[in-house]
Amino acid sequence: MGAGSKHDLGSTSAGPPGPSASRSRRGRESRRAERLNAPLVHAPTLVRNVPLYEILDDEGVQLVHQTAMTIVHEIGVSFFDEESLRLWKEAGADVNGARVHIPPGLLMSLIKTAPAEFVLHARNPERTVRIGGRNMILHPPGGAYICDLSGVRRRAVKSDLDIIVKLNHCLTPIHVTTGWPAIDLSDVPVPIRHLHQIYCPLRYSDKPITANSYSKEAAEDAIAMCEIVFGREFVQRNAVVATLTNCNSPLKLDGSMLEGLKVFARAGQPVICSPFVLYGASTPPHVVGAMAQVVAESLAGVALVQLIRPGTPALFAIAPMGVSMKSGSPTWGVPEVSQMVYLSGQMARFYGLPWRVSGPKSGSKIVDFCAGNDAAVRAYQSLLSGANWISHSGGSLEGGMQLNLAKMVLDAKLMEACCVFARGVSTADLDTVVQMMRDLGNESHFLGADYTRENLPFIPHLQDNETYDAWVADGRKDGFARGLEAANALLRRYSDIEPVLDPAVDEALKEFIAKRERGCTAVGA
Amino acid sequence: MGAGSKHDLGSTSAGPPGPSASRSRRGRESRRAERLNAPLVHAPTLVRNVPLYEILDDEGVQLVHQTAMTIVHEIGVSFFDEESLRLWKEAGADVNGARVHIPPGLLMSLIKTAPAEFVLHARNPERTVRIGGRNMILHPPGGAYICDLSGVRRRAVKSDLDIIVKLNHCLTPIHVTTGWPAIDLSDVPVPIRHLHQIYCPLRYSDKPITANSYSKEAAEDAIAMCEIVFGREFVQRNAVVATLTNCNSPLKLDGSMLEGLKVFARAGQPVICSPFVLYGASTPPHVVGAMAQVVAESLAGVALVQLIRPGTPALFAIAPMGVSMKSGSPTWGVPEVSQMVYLSGQMARFYGLPWRVSGPKSGSKIVDFCAGNDAAVRAYQSLLSGANWISHSGGSLEGGMQLNLAKMVLDAKLMEACCVFARGVSTADLDTVVQMMRDLGNESHFLGADYTRENLPFIPHLQDNETYDAWVADGRKDGFARGLEAANALLRRYSDIEPVLDPAVDEALKEFIAKRERGCTAVGA
Repeated sequence: MGAGSKHDLGSTSAGPPGPSASRSRRGRESRRAERLNAPLVHAPTLVRNVPLYEILDDEGVQLVHQTAMTIVHEIGVSFFDEESLRLWKEAGADVNGARVHIPPGLLMSLIKTAPAEFVLHARNPERTVRIGGRNMILHPPGGAYICDLSGVRRRAVKSDLDIIVKLNHCLTPIHVTTGWPAIDLSDVPVPIRHLHQIYCPLRYSDKPITANSYSKEAAEDAIAMCEIVFGREFVQRNAVVATLTNCNSPLKLDGSMLEGLKVFARAGQPVICSPFVLYGASTPPHVVGAMAQVVAESLAGVALVQLIRPGTPALFAIAPMGVSMKSGSPTWGVPEVSQMVYLSGQMARFYGLPWRVSGPKSGSKIVDFCAGNDAAVRAYQSLLSGANWISHSGGSLEGGMQLNLAKMVLDAKLMEACCVFARGVSTADLDTVVQMMRDLGNESHFLGADYTRENLPFIPHLQDNETYDAWVADGRKDGFARGLEAANALLRRYSDIEPVLDPAVDEALKEFIAKRERGCTAVGA
Repeated sequence: MGAGSKHDLGSTSAGPPGPSASRSRRGRESRRAERLNAPLVHAPTLVRNVPLYEILDDEGVQLVHQTAMTIVHEIGVSFFDEESLRLWKEAGADVNGARVHIPPGLLMSLIKTAPAEFVLHARNPERTVRIGGRNMILHPPGGAYICDLSGVRRRAVKSDLDIIVKLNHCLTPIHVTTGWPAIDLSDVPVPIRHLHQIYCPLRYSDKPITANSYSKEAAEDAIAMCEIVFGREFVQRNAVVATLTNCNSPLKLDGSMLEGLKVFARAGQPVICSPFVLYGASTPPHVVGAMAQVVAESLAGVALVQLIRPGTPALFAIAPMGVSMKSGSPTWGVPEVSQMVYLSGQMARFYGLPWRVSGPKSGSKIVDFCAGNDAAVRAYQSLLSGANWISHSGGSLEGGMQLNLAKMVLDAKLMEACCVFARGVSTADLDTVVQMMRDLGNESHFLGADYTRENLPFIPHLQDNETYDAWVADGRKDGFARGLEAANALLRRYSDIEPVLDPAVDEALKEFIAKRERGCTAVGA
């Protein structure tokens, strides 16, 4: 309550009308202009003020834990990296080839050093976020294909990245900008692609960043470029860039991902340890069994991070999907997977770890009804399961292959609604409200009351709630068309809020990239 | 768990492949045929086996209750009906014009006679459902417009009703057929429209029915026609037809609705007492205040039913919507309204009443992304708030004005996923699953395992989870197109499961209608 007048999060949300404005005399155009000119105010870290949903009782959580301990100890987890195997051996695990059998006591003692909460710094301290506990942040997706500002789906190219980062910067409910998950720039050679993927968010946004770590070089370059922006000493002591390593489920961490993990862990930078769940394919089709496997896999990653540098932030995580028994493709809308999301939250809290879930993705190719279903199911699930970090919070289609700019804005609006929900139910003002009811009796509605004008409910402006005739007159737009319009309108406002990057720093970043592109390996800063 | 092989709820859901079938050699057409030929098995009443989500603590619930008691007593509720006013006066309420000030003690003692659970009989006992407690049933919407099997939106006519009822009968996750909410038959005169609205579901379905009670005559005719089908004595002692009365919020029950309510209450038939919430217009924009108003309004209706015939089933209910501050239209996707849905469940349980919520509706005009959002948000919310009766569970657009046949099937599939979720997480088979993990190690995936084939996860078949190229080759269908195909395919199967109605009973119903149409008032049976 009382937050109604604060819904000024971007052009996707109207500011309230002035109390004295006569709504009936305003035309649609002027209302649209009003919405477009509402100030863009970036949302701070959301602090949840609602209870969470728990699908199993304590006994169920214990059962998942015990099963996970059986898995890590008896079956083991494979690490395809000599250094990781050596570290595990030294720590007292039983290493058999690539397979590491981790004693539960060792695993539990290792994850204890991972912080339950931590701060992820942005280059603008006002955008710095807090991860863990009751905090929740939203993070955008990547993709190999883009559905662009004209609504055309095609391979993503370098010039798209600027636009994506700028649009994301304007999406005020989104807390973090992206480096990971990657926008695959098809016109940039793979060995130097990561340089642009990290430069763009550093240059065009001042939100906290993430970076890929799919190779040792990509990870090292990400850290080095952050050192240019934040200063080497600051980076050594603070979290400034997060990355994600997927586990190759079942129970395998491959060499290239481990290289990236090691670089980030050594630098004390956050690592999201995320098994890639294809329920019924990479895990058994059994919620408790699958969850135990995910716990084993994710904790194995978190523990390795702690072996490398105790105290480094590491997130419990899950990338939960179903699988089409027809094509083997990832599938959304699977209720057993929904159950796993809630259970993931319970397990993360059981282990005292911050945790991440992938948010409103869909297997759809277009912004259709099914994409809308998938987005909403996962959006509210992420919230009520207590996820601290909700990735893919805007625009992900084709199971993550397509970044759709129209859906980017639509999803952000959906997530903004979740955030309003998450602020909880306030009992403040109740006396005022009851007095208003006494005064009105049942003679009138509340639409014209001062209290209503001062406490406007959240309005999902990208939805169509006009009459049928008004909708026809406005060109029969579907959600996709409205999202596309909103994306174009929002991007035009980027220059209003473009963050400044010190030209000397920008120059140093460009020099670093140029050196790398020339094949230099020495880090110059 | 273990329910995987039981997802045979209609052509919208594939049966599992035979264990020995080579999936890779089967073409898309044969898989589609297999799905189309899966047996149609009607779902029984769903008994929830998951915890519910509670957004306020006991103190918050008490605060809503106390505020509601203040409202009914101090502000009062208006009943625009002399007989109702007399009943309230005799019961000890303070009647002031149409305004009834109900002492909280009186209200609480009255609602105590409403049963916490009851049975709603179908003419086929196998379709009989249970309302209240952990039970959950799904009920379809009505509409003035239909988007038909060709995908054309137009006014609904008499011949549509047969199709709607038949399609609804084939939708196996849907428990109840419809009479209420009305399909507005534009080619049938208003005074006799209700006769067809109740005949069709009695004739073409054997699921439990609902009926409109917008007038004394409509209500009496519904009861009379049920007496023809069930026998007068059975109807006198059992619930066979439910109706809904909307409260004209704030705090008014109008005369025509009260006439209908009285007829149903006298006949001992269930009445759903549902305030029509336009959050910020018909209620204050304050979750606790608005909820208190809804409690006051709904309980006033439940109590009147008990005054008329104690022990008659009466449901606490809410029709929760936001309101567009631009156009005054109902609006979905409003997070404060979502909070009210969860709180409604808590209040219903506090009062020991079964309760109803309106399900996956949308303000959208078409089956688009936003309609998908709205449907999914309300679907899972209805489930996790513990609603016993989820109405509008298939096809509602334009805020209830349009019944969309494609969305009818899409929504039913979404609700089916909710039902699988609601069955809960089982720990059975865990030993088997862990042994399977031991056997597989991390050498293989689980897709080919016997256990997986015997326990297939739920697959949302109306979603597109193929590759992009396969989607293009299949004609770039969106969710709407897939829903429309599925609706057409499903309806073709109606004859396989058409329920028999005793020809003598059918004749008697037709005779009753003919007499009414000729202006006769005597009930002949």
